[in-house]
Amino acid sequence: MNTRRLGIWFVGACGGVASTAALGLAALRRGLIGETGMVTALPQFAGLDLDEAAWFEVGGHDVRRATYRQAVRDLRQRSNVFDPEVVEACLPELDRWTENVRPGTVLNAGPAIDRLADLPEAHRAETARSAIDRIQVDLRDFRARHRLDQVVVVNVASTEAPFPETDALGTVEQLLPALEKRQPILPASSLYAWAALDLGWPYLNFTPSLGASFPAAHELAETRRAVHGGKDGKTGETLLKTVLAPMFALRNLRVLSWVGHNIFGNRDGVILDDPANKASKIRTKDQVITQILGYRPQTHVSIEYIESLDDWKTAWDHIHFQGFLGVKMMLQFTWQGCDSLLAAPLVLDVARLALLAQRRGEVGVLRHLACFFKNPMGVEEHDFFKQFTLLGEYAARAAHR
Amino acid sequence: MNTRRLGIWFVGACGGVASTAALGLAALRRGLIGETGMVTALPQFAGLDLDEAAWFEVGGHDVRRATYRQAVRDLRQRSNVFDPEVVEACLPELDRWTENVRPGTVLNAGPAIDRLADLPEAHRAETARSAIDRIQVDLRDFRARHRLDQVVVVNVASTEAPFPETDALGTVEQLLPALEKRQPILPASSLYAWAALDLGWPYLNFTPSLGASFPAAHELAETRRAVHGGKDGKTGETLLKTVLAPMFALRNLRVLSWVGHNIFGNRDGVILDDPANKASKIRTKDQVITQILGYRPQTHVSIEYIESLDDWKTAWDHIHFQGFLGVKMMLQFTWQGCDSLLAAPLVLDVARLALLAQRRGEVGVLRHLACFFKNPMGVEEHDFFKQFTLLGEYAARAAHR
Amino acid sequence: MNTRRLGIWFVGACGGVASTAALGLAALRRGLIGETGMVTALPQFAGLDLDEAAWFEVGGHDVRRATYRQAVRDLRQRSNVFDPEVVEACLPELDRWTENVRPGTVLNAGPAIDRLADLPEAHRAETARSAIDRIQVDLRDFRARHRLDQVVVVNVASTEAPFPETDALGTVEQLLPALEKRQPILPASSLYAWAALDLGWPYLNFTPSLGASFPAAHELAETRRAVHGGKDGKTGETLLKTVLAPMFALRNLRVLSWVGHNIFGNRDGVILDDPANKASKIRTKDQVITQILGYRPQTHVSIEYIESLDDWKTAWDHIHFQGFLGVKMMLQFTWQGCDSLLAAPLVLDVARLALLAQRRGEVGVLRHLACFFKNPMGVEEHDFFKQFTLLGEYAARAAHR
Amino acid sequence: MNTRRLGIWFVGACGGVASTAALGLAALRRGLIGETGMVTALPQFAGLDLDEAAWFEVGGHDVRRATYRQAVRDLRQRSNVFDPEVVEACLPELDRWTENVRPGTVLNAGPAIDRLADLPEAHRAETARSAIDRIQVDLRDFRARHRLDQVVVVNVASTEAPFPETDALGTVEQLLPALEKRQPILPASSLYAWAALDLGWPYLNFTPSLGASFPAAHELAETRRAVHGGKDGKTGETLLKTVLAPMFALRNLRVLSWVGHNIFGNRDGVILDDPANKASKIRTKDQVITQILGYRPQTHVSIEYIESLDDWKTAWDHIHFQGFLGVKMMLQFTWQGCDSLLAAPLVLDVARLALLAQRRGEVGVLRHLACFFKNPMGVEEHDFFKQFTLLGEYAARAAHR
Repeated sequence: MNTRRLGIWFVGACGGVASTAALGLAALRRGLIGETGMVTALPQFAGLDLDEAAWFEVGGHDVRRATYRQAVRDLRQRSNVFDPEVVEACLPELDRWTENVRPGTVLNAGPAIDRLADLPEAHRAETARSAIDRIQVDLRDFRARHRLDQVVVVNVASTEAPFPETDALGTVEQLLPALEKRQPILPASSLYAWAALDLGWPYLNFTPSLGASFPAAHELAETRRAVHGGKDGKTGETLLKTVLAPMFALRNLRVLSWVGHNIFGNRDGVILDDPANKASKIRTKDQVITQILGYRPQTHVSIEYIESLDDWKTAWDHIHFQGFLGVKMMLQFTWQGCDSLLAAPLVLDVARLALLAQRRGEVGVLRHLACFFKNPMGVEEHDFFKQFTLLGEYAARAAHR
Repeated sequence: MNTRRLGIWFVGACGGVASTAALGLAALRRGLIGETGMVTALPQFAGLDLDEAAWFEVGGHDVRRATYRQAVRDLRQRSNVFDPEVVEACLPELDRWTENVRPGTVLNAGPAIDRLADLPEAHRAETARSAIDRIQVDLRDFRARHRLDQVVVVNVASTEAPFPETDALGTVEQLLPALEKRQPILPASSLYAWAALDLGWPYLNFTPSLGASFPAAHELAETRRAVHGGKDGKTGETLLKTVLAPMFALRNLRVLSWVGHNIFGNRDGVILDDPANKASKIRTKDQVITQILGYRPQTHVSIEYIESLDDWKTAWDHIHFQGFLGVKMMLQFTWQGCDSLLAAPLVLDVARLALLAQRRGEVGVLRHLACFFKNPMGVEEHDFFKQFTLLGEYAARAAHR
Repeated sequence: MNTRRLGIWFVGACGGVASTAALGLAALRRGLIGETGMVTALPQFAGLDLDEAAWFEVGGHDVRRATYRQAVRDLRQRSNVFDPEVVEACLPELDRWTENVRPGTVLNAGPAIDRLADLPEAHRAETARSAIDRIQVDLRDFRARHRLDQVVVVNVASTEAPFPETDALGTVEQLLPALEKRQPILPASSLYAWAALDLGWPYLNFTPSLGASFPAAHELAETRRAVHGGKDGKTGETLLKTVLAPMFALRNLRVLSWVGHNIFGNRDGVILDDPANKASKIRTKDQVITQILGYRPQTHVSIEYIESLDDWKTAWDHIHFQGFLGVKMMLQFTWQGCDSLLAAPLVLDVARLALLAQRRGEVGVLRHLACFFKNPMGVEEHDFFKQFTLLGEYAARAAHR
Repeated sequence: MNTRRLGIWFVGACGGVASTAALGLAALRRGLIGETGMVTALPQFAGLDLDEAAWFEVGGHDVRRATYRQAVRDLRQRSNVFDPEVVEACLPELDRWTENVRPGTVLNAGPAIDRLADLPEAHRAETARSAIDRIQVDLRDFRARHRLDQVVVVNVASTEAPFPETDALGTVEQLLPALEKRQPILPASSLYAWAALDLGWPYLNFTPSLGASFPAAHELAETRRAVHGGKDGKTGETLLKTVLAPMFALRNLRVLSWVGHNIFGNRDGVILDDPANKASKIRTKDQVITQILGYRPQTHVSIEYIESLDDWKTAWDHIHFQGFLGVKMMLQFTWQGCDSLLAAPLVLDVARLALLAQRRGEVGVLRHLACFFKNPMGVEEHDFFKQFTLLGEYAARAAHR
C-alpha cells in the first residue's frame, strides 16, 4: 500500500456537511479523533486498499462567500457541536483548504438557492457549456497545483427544486448541442456532474438533486470510463425506515400508516422551506416503505424549517400496524441527530470507495453503494440490511491479497 | 399434501397467549381472519409442507380454574381487543377445547406462581417423577382420545423464578434417580419439557423458564429423537433491540447507553412483579445488545407491573450514541403492542415448524427458530436479520418438491 | 330543584361528537356510566342548578343520511371504543332520537362539506333567508312536539373553510336585506347560529367555523336576550399547550420553537384534508402560545388525515426552550386521545352551563366558558388555569342558595 | 434601593448546581447573560427590593477536593453546556470564590456520600456539636472577611439516605444534650441547617435531605428569628407532574396510572444509585400526583444512573387516563433538561427571596416558596399554579412603595 495524493472536491464547499468532513479529515490526520461514524472503518473493510485521511487535499465550489474557519465556528456556536480544542488544532488545514474554494454556479438551481448565493460569479454563466467549462478549469487547476493522483467530486450542496427533464437528456449526442444554448437544459447539480464525468473523474451525488441521474450522463460515464453513485445520503429518519420496515415485513405485521415529521433549522432547511425544493426531498423519503413492504400503506412525510434546531434534525415517526386477529398497535420513534455529523463520515466513505473503484477499473454506477443513499442508483432495494449485504459482498470480492 | 390430525398442547392453557392462539386457530379454521402476524404465512415459506389451522386440536395444562370462554372474554374486556363477532362465532371450539384442559403442577415454580394456582391438583405432586408421570398420562390421553398423528407441547406459562441448576442436571443417568426424591431437582417448566421429550414429542419453550435448556434434557431429546426449541418469545421491545442494534453496528455509531423501560399489566406482569421472576426475564432481555454490538455499552432494562395497561406492553427505549467527531445523539422509541396478540401467531409458527421438523426426521434443538426467541438455544446470534436468514435457508432446504 | 324538560339540538347531529354525546346522555340516564370527563360534575359546581342527563331530549340537523345506531356502531368498530353492552342497552334512546334528526344545509359551507352531503335537501336552499326559515321551522317543531322548556343549539359539524366576512356582517340592519339575496353572505354555520339566536335560544359553537362570531350576531343576541359561546372545543393538543405554556412563562424559560403535528382519521379529518378547511383550524390552534408567553416564538402546527387512526387524535409536540446561561433544552409529548370522547362531555358541560345562564337571565357571550374553547369569545386569555378561574368565580356567584 | 453586601454559602460548594449558580452570578455581574430561567426576574416581582447579582460574594462547604474552575470545565466538557467565552471571562470570580470554599462534613450522610468525600477534614468530626461548631466558624469567618450584611446558606449537596428521626429531634431542649454525644443524632445536612439557623441566618434546603425539617429546627428558627425553606428543588419531571395533574383534575379525566422513568448521569446520579439515597428522592417525587388528584392512581417512579447522559436529566412519563364512557387514553412526555442549569437560577431565586424575607423581619418557614420545591415545607398544595399564586400574593404584599 503506497502513499497516494488524493483530492476531494465538494460542490457546496463550505456547507455544513463539507465543512464537517473537512474538519474530520484534518482531525483524523492529526490523530485527534477516531473513526466512529465511518462505515469503511469497520473490520469487514480492512482488506480493501482504501485511502487514508492524511492523503487528502480538500477543495470545492461554493456560491456563497465563506471560509472553513467561519463555517466550522458557525456550526459549533449554533448547533453546539465539536470540541473547541479540536477545532483550534485544525485551523491550519481549514485555512489552507479555504484557499482551494472557487465560486460555483446557480444556473437553474432555482430561486431559493439563487437568493442564497452572494458571490457575483455564481450568477454569471450564460450557457450550460460556459458553466461546465469554468468548472472544469477549476477542477483541473486543483489537481495540477496539488499534483494529485485522483480527485473525487461530491455534491453536498443544498437540494435543488425538481428540474423538468427533456428528451435532450436522453443521449450525449442530443445533449451536446443543447448545452450551447441559453434555454435551461440542466440544473446546476448536473453541470458539476457533467464536468467531473467528462474528465473521467469519480462523481458522487449526496443530495436528491438531478446530478448525474439521467441517461446522457450514464452514457458519458461509460465513454469516459468514470464511476459515479448517488442519490441523497441516507443519514437519519429514512435510514430508520429502511431498518424498521423490514422487521414489519418479516414478522408479517401489516403497516396501516407511516407518518414521519422532520424538523430542523440549518441552511438546508431554509432551502427546503421552499415548496419546490421540499418536493424533491419528500419524494425520495416516501418511496422506501412501499418498496420494502410490497404494498402501499398510507404514508406522510413532512419537513419543516425550525430555526432554533439548527443542524439537529429531529424526526418523529408514528407507525400504525395491524397484528393477529386484526389488532392495531403502534410504534413511535424520535430521532435527534446532528445532520452534518451523520452525513460527513458517510461522504468520506463513499469518496474512499469511489476512488478505490476507479483504481480497480470499474465503470459506471457503483451499485454497491446503495446502503448509503435514500434513492440508490441502479438498485431497487431499500432494505438497509440487504443493501449492506451488497456492500459486504463487494468488499469480499475487492479485498486485495 | 394430506390432511393430518394434529394437537397443540399448551402449558399455561388458559393464559393470554394460549387463549389468543386458540381463538386464532378457531377463527382461521372458520375463515374469519387472515394470517397477519404469522411468519410462516409469508411467501418464502409457501414451499414447506406446513399444517393448516383446521387440522389442530387444542389442549393443555393449567394451574388455575379457567375456561377459554372466560379467558377470551377477560382479554376482550380488559385489553379492548378482539372483534366481538369473531369471539361469538368461535365459542363452540373454545368450549370444546376447554374440555381438554387438565390440572398442571406448580412444583418448584416459585412462590409467585404458587399463589396464583387455585387448583388443588396443581399443588399435589410430591416428587418430580410423580408429576412427570401425571403429565404424561394427560398427554397420552389427549392424543389417544382425538386420534392425533402428532402433538406439539408449547410452554406459554408465566415466567418462573431462576432455579439453581445442580450437577444432577448434567446427564440423564444422573438425573433419573434424583427425580424420584423429594428434594427440589427441577422446576415445573422442566417437568413438562421432560414429559414431552421423553415421549419423543416436539417441545417448545416460549418463556425464559428453564424448560428443556439443560444438558440432560438435550441428551433425552437425542435419545428419544425429539425436536425442541426456545427460549422466550421475542415479541416486542427485544425484537426492536435486535433490529436497531445492527443498524448502529453497521453504521459504526457507538452506542453509549441503551435504557429500556417496560410497563404492562397482565397476569405475566403480576408474576414478574416478584423480583425473583423478574430477574429471569431481564437477564434474557439485556444480553442482546452486547452480542450484536461486540462491546458492552451501559444497559438498563426495567419491567414494571402497571395494572391499567393490561395486556398492552408499552416500552420506552432511550438509545444514546456517539457519532463522528464525538457528537452524542439520541434515538427514543415507544412501543405499544398487545403482548398476547404478538406472541400467539409466533407460537403457531414455531408449532408448525416443529411438527414439520419432526416429520422430516430432525432431532434435537431447532436452531433455525432463533429469530423467534430472545435467548435462542444453540445460536449465539441475536441480530434479527441474520437469524431470519437462518430460517430462510432452512426453508429453502426443506421445501417439498 | 324541579324536573325540567330540555332539548339539545346538534348541528352535525350524527357526527362523532354528537353521537357520542347522545350515547352518553342515554347511558347516564340509565346509570350505566359515571360522569368522568364532565367538568360540571366536579364538586366545585355542585352548588349550581344544572340540568340532569335524564331531562334531555336529543335532536339535530345533519347533511348526510345517518342514524345514531349506525353512527355509534361505526365509531365502535373503527375506533375500538364503547362497551358493546352499553351500546346495546341504549339503542331505544338512540333510535328514538334519530327520529328527531332533520336535513341541514350546506349553503356556503365550502366544497369539502358539499361533497360529503348526500341528502338532497341539504343542497336545496337558495338564499340565507330561506335556509334560516327552514332551520327555525325544525327547531320550533322539535320544541313543540316534545313540549320542551328550553332548547340549546350546539354546532358540532365539520369545520368550514374560512368565509370572507363583508361589511354587511357589521349590524343587523345591514345584514337583514343581504340575507334575502342569492349572493353568498353567510356560511352554513352562521345560518344555524342566526336561527337559534333569533329565537332567543342559547347557541354554542364547538367548531372554528364562523357561527355567531360576527358583530351582527352579537347584536342579535343582545336584542333577543340570548346567550351564546364558542369557539372550537379545546380537547387535546391545544389544551396541553394552554397548560404547558404557562409553566414556561412562570419559570422564565424562553420558548424558542413549538412544533405540533396532529394526525387523525375521522370524518373531520377528511374535511380538514382540504387546505381551505385546515386553514381555519390551524389558525385557532396556533395563536395560544404567543398570547400566553407574551412574545412570539417560532410555531408550526400541522394536521394530517391518516385514515387508520380513525377518531384517535394523535399529536406530537416538540418544545425547544432556553434556560439559564443560554442552554437549550427540549420537551416532547405525545397525546393519544379519542377526539369524540374528549369532546362529547365538554359539549354537555357547555350545554348545561348555557341553559343555566339563560334561566339566570344572562345575555350575550358567556365569557366564563373560555376554558372550554381554543378561541374563546370575549376573552383574550388562553392560560387554561386562568380561564378555569373565571369559571370557578362564576360558579361561586351563580350558586343557588 | 441601596447597594448591599451579600453572601451566598453553598453546602456542596463545587457540585453542579452551586458551580452553575456561581458561574451565573459572575456572568450576570459582567452583563454576559440575561436572566432567563430566573423566576424573580419576571415583571410581577419588579416591585420587590431584591438583591442584584453584582452584590453577591460566593463561598461554601464541600467534602471533595475541588475548584470552581475545574467544576465548570467538567460540566462544560461532559454535558456540553456553557459558552466557552463566558466561562473564560468569569474565571477571575470563579478562582476568587474557590478561596472561600471550606471542608464540609460527612457525619451521618451515609456510605455513598462517605465514599465520595476525599477531603480528610470531612471525615474528622466526632460529635454533632463539634461539626456544628466548625461550620459556624467557617460561616462567621466568611461574613467577617467580606464584611457582608447578610449571608444565606443553601444546601445543594447530594441527597442523603433517609435518616431515622428520633424523639430527641422534637425540641431544642431535648436535642441540645444529644448533640454532644457520639451516637448519630442528625445527618450532615441538618448540622449545616442547625449551624445557620442558630446564627439567625436564612437557610434553604434544595435537596430531599433532612436539613431543617424537624421540630427542634423549627423551634430554633423561631427563637433565633431566622427564615428557612425547602425541600428539594422542583426542576424537571416533578414540575411537569404538578403542571399536568391539575389539568386532568379540572377536566375530570381519571388518571389510572402515572409512570415516570428518570435517567441521568451526574454525580447526584452516582449517589442516587445507592438504594438508600434513591429512596429519599423517590418519596418526594411520588406523592404529588395523589395530593393534586385527590385519589391514588397507581404510580411508579424510577431513577437510574446512566453515565453517558451526564447532567442531562431525561425523563419519560406515561400517563394512562380514562375519559367519558370509560375510554382509556394516553399522554406521554419526554423531558430533556440539563439539571444544574434548571436548578441554579431557582437557587438564586430562593436565595434572593429569603434575604428579602429576613430584611422584612419574617420568621420561620417561608411558605410562599412552595412553587420552588417538590416537597414544600408548611404547604400541602402541590398544584404548581396554586403554589405560584401564593408567591404572587406575597409579592403583592411585599412590594416596596
